[in-house]
Amino acid sequence: MHTRVSELVERFGGQLEGDPDTEIAAVAPLERAGPADISFLGNTRMRPLASRSRAAALILAPPDRDAVAAGYEGARIVTANPYAYFARTAQLLIPRLVPEPGIHPSAVVHPSARVHSSAHIGPQVTVEADAVIEAGAVIDGGCYIGREAVVGEDTHFFANVSFLARCAIGARGIVHSGAVIGGDGFGFAVEDGVYIKIPQTGRVVIGDDVDIGCNTTVDRGALDDTVIEDGVKLDNQIQIGHNCHIGAHTAMAGCVGVAGSAMIGKYCTFGGAAMVNGHIEIADHVDITAGTLVSNSILAPGRYTGFYPIATNAEWERSAALVRKLSTMRERLRALEKAVKALGEAS
Amino acid sequence: MHTRVSELVERFGGQLEGDPDTEIAAVAPLERAGPADISFLGNTRMRPLASRSRAAALILAPPDRDAVAAGYEGARIVTANPYAYFARTAQLLIPRLVPEPGIHPSAVVHPSARVHSSAHIGPQVTVEADAVIEAGAVIDGGCYIGREAVVGEDTHFFANVSFLARCAIGARGIVHSGAVIGGDGFGFAVEDGVYIKIPQTGRVVIGDDVDIGCNTTVDRGALDDTVIEDGVKLDNQIQIGHNCHIGAHTAMAGCVGVAGSAMIGKYCTFGGAAMVNGHIEIADHVDITAGTLVSNSILAPGRYTGFYPIATNAEWERSAALVRKLSTMRERLRALEKAVKALGEAS
Amino acid sequence: MHTRVSELVERFGGQLEGDPDTEIAAVAPLERAGPADISFLGNTRMRPLASRSRAAALILAPPDRDAVAAGYEGARIVTANPYAYFARTAQLLIPRLVPEPGIHPSAVVHPSARVHSSAHIGPQVTVEADAVIEAGAVIDGGCYIGREAVVGEDTHFFANVSFLARCAIGARGIVHSGAVIGGDGFGFAVEDGVYIKIPQTGRVVIGDDVDIGCNTTVDRGALDDTVIEDGVKLDNQIQIGHNCHIGAHTAMAGCVGVAGSAMIGKYCTFGGAAMVNGHIEIADHVDITAGTLVSNSILAPGRYTGFYPIATNAEWERSAALVRKLSTMRERLRALEKAVKALGEAS
Repeated sequence: MHTRVSELVERFGGQLEGDPDTEIAAVAPLERAGPADISFLGNTRMRPLASRSRAAALILAPPDRDAVAAGYEGARIVTANPYAYFARTAQLLIPRLVPEPGIHPSAVVHPSARVHSSAHIGPQVTVEADAVIEAGAVIDGGCYIGREAVVGEDTHFFANVSFLARCAIGARGIVHSGAVIGGDGFGFAVEDGVYIKIPQTGRVVIGDDVDIGCNTTVDRGALDDTVIEDGVKLDNQIQIGHNCHIGAHTAMAGCVGVAGSAMIGKYCTFGGAAMVNGHIEIADHVDITAGTLVSNSILAPGRYTGFYPIATNAEWERSAALVRKLSTMRERLRALEKAVKALGEAS
Repeated sequence: MHTRVSELVERFGGQLEGDPDTEIAAVAPLERAGPADISFLGNTRMRPLASRSRAAALILAPPDRDAVAAGYEGARIVTANPYAYFARTAQLLIPRLVPEPGIHPSAVVHPSARVHSSAHIGPQVTVEADAVIEAGAVIDGGCYIGREAVVGEDTHFFANVSFLARCAIGARGIVHSGAVIGGDGFGFAVEDGVYIKIPQTGRVVIGDDVDIGCNTTVDRGALDDTVIEDGVKLDNQIQIGHNCHIGAHTAMAGCVGVAGSAMIGKYCTFGGAAMVNGHIEIADHVDITAGTLVSNSILAPGRYTGFYPIATNAEWERSAALVRKLSTMRERLRALEKAVKALGEAS
Repeated sequence: MHTRVSELVERFGGQLEGDPDTEIAAVAPLERAGPADISFLGNTRMRPLASRSRAAALILAPPDRDAVAAGYEGARIVTANPYAYFARTAQLLIPRLVPEPGIHPSAVVHPSARVHSSAHIGPQVTVEADAVIEAGAVIDGGCYIGREAVVGEDTHFFANVSFLARCAIGARGIVHSGAVIGGDGFGFAVEDGVYIKIPQTGRVVIGDDVDIGCNTTVDRGALDDTVIEDGVKLDNQIQIGHNCHIGAHTAMAGCVGVAGSAMIGKYCTFGGAAMVNGHIEIADHVDITAGTLVSNSILAPGRYTGFYPIATNAEWERSAALVRKLSTMRERLRALEKAVKALGEAS
């Protein structure tokens, strides 16, 4: 799609400098942008790249305005958050490819399921009894929608998603390929070392504007529901245990694991492969660093970290051996303190 | 389904107190249980909740009997393991939804495959040549059953499972959506830095009463088989490498990884994201804490742990910097000991 | 298939000792090998097993030649890299089962897709518009091939792979079940704590001879492509973020995670569950130990490690408590050094 920078400013705000009729057709990184592209300046270190850029237009922040204007001749949009502005511009220029409404002849849709006439059901899909697919929803090839499941308006399931019985997702969601929503939670009683399954009768209830990554799994609750609030973004290969509650606008990077019944606040972030133990509470606005195990509740906002620092293998062998001997080192320290005190008193 | 508490006691034992004709229809947590529900007292701290509960009946342990009886007026079942009793009661009240026997017309079943007349094959399923699906097995939509694979009696595959050639699972198993059983093991010879694949000709052989979680992967053996014994419970997103042997009634939480040829005992537990190196032996009754890397064999029962403790990011930066400098600290300690000894001798 | 050891030596080289007409039909481990099997001696510790082996023939290295010849009477092939020789022999004796060319009637292949007449498209497969499936490629049941995707010659997709729009893989690749190639990268701008999606318009471009494990995910690039070079081997449950570049002949064990825009060199190895932060550079010939988080760029070859050593839970509790108190220990060390210095000067 084509547009002019003046149209962007009408839609998204910002202060326009340069030719308002500058045409743009695509987004591109600063280095690769050409005369039909718009690009953006993410931070001040990119100023030299921006000055040399061949982009038709740039999005930048007020502190970079004068420095860039000195060297760059294209149109500029000045705005407080250039990256967010760039995201909206990219969404406008690269509209989502929406397939034709209708049900592919190879799909199996139970007669009691309700599929809105504007929804798209791709090849090899299964939609079970009493499921509901709302307006504008897109279900790509090979997906499985369980009985009584609900897929909200304009939500998009990529190929081979499993969305199991009675689960629900709101509007404008994206569920990526291979994700499994609504598998049984890992709930067992133990008797004489043998596991007895607790039937998992809760659901997974997902709000609006939620993205779920490839091969991510979210388990249904045991008796109550697993809940994922509006705006949550889950990357790939994440595991969310039964009865978890993930607060609105929390984001998790790939390979994160959250054990059952964890209550996680709003506006949190989790770095890759962070792990959260079960039955833990995490406050709003908590940031967990990649590779960190959250073993206890965190009640104050802030950044928390816990991973063993990487080193050459030889250095690690030394430090790891000493970590195991820390209590010996403390004993030696105590003995020395005693000896020095005695010497001090004697002298 | 409906039942009376007297029927529960007939089936599952326990000592009944209160009205034996008390009707129950469902299970519920103490807080939410109403006059048609049965609930349970998992531990002594729940006594106040139990006393106030509106449940028709409660399952509880002998130490809680008198305290609860003082405040609560419904029926009570006293038993040594209330949670296990609750699990059995829940299984009775919430019977597994078993679909109609038969093969969905959209399924592709090879003429040489044997599907028992009481088994269910859902939509979009593929069953390859010479596969065997035994009595009462349920294969949900989109599953793939490879040639010569065997699915045991009453075993349930949720949607989109891949169960590859020649693998076998016993009776009453559950394999959740997205699980892949029988992918090639990661076996290569290296020559001049280039990898040469070793054909993986073993199988995966799974016992009875095994649960396998969503998107969990179990690789086939290289020459011999990968073996998962009876009663093993694997949560979601677990990876089991080729030629591993997992002993009976061992349970693993989500995101655990086990490298090839690990021999793991019976009645072990693994917390989430625990990792086991290859060619390692782990004895029976070993418990591994979440987030722990098992780098060597463990021959004695007990709990083992190894993860970096979480802290505020600032505290972690200090401790991580010092972990790297532990050998310097030890040198300083040694120098001090020498100096103090010299001073002591001099004085 | 059957062969004679003389034929192996003609194909793969090595020095033959013993009867050149020795017939072999299969490969087997030393312990289990019988009179129709060939086995190999991976290292010198296996000499006693080799001497007692009932194998028809053995592959071994020059240092083991005399010791084995003294006790073992079958044919021997002496070669510098017995394991690589064994791999090639196994590939010869166990040819890949290649299904009949053709498109299964249940598959849905868009009329604009080009499927080579020698390729195999299995049951329940979807091939979208303008996709290309080249000669000898095998697409097993339930796979999804997105529009304009390209699958190279003799590449094999196991069941239920999702290979999304515009992605490309070269020749002789293997993609295992449940893998997802080309999901959207995890790219968002943040405004007032709310995430705004950046459209992900790059592709995943995969070279020749690449293996991708079960349920592994590789995200498409944001604007540029995610690139996986020739000969890369990825095990199961690996996550590769958008815009990563993985150099040729690098291998990663299960559960590894690589965050976006990481640039990884050639001939690297990553142990299980190793994690790589985003925007990091790793040189050629770097080996990362299992369970290690790579938090900074690594510019020199070598082995790097960083995981907390496992211990009994009680020992870990002591060491973890002291790790948190390392700065206190350093303060006490400093105070002691000062005191001892003062005592020394005083005496």
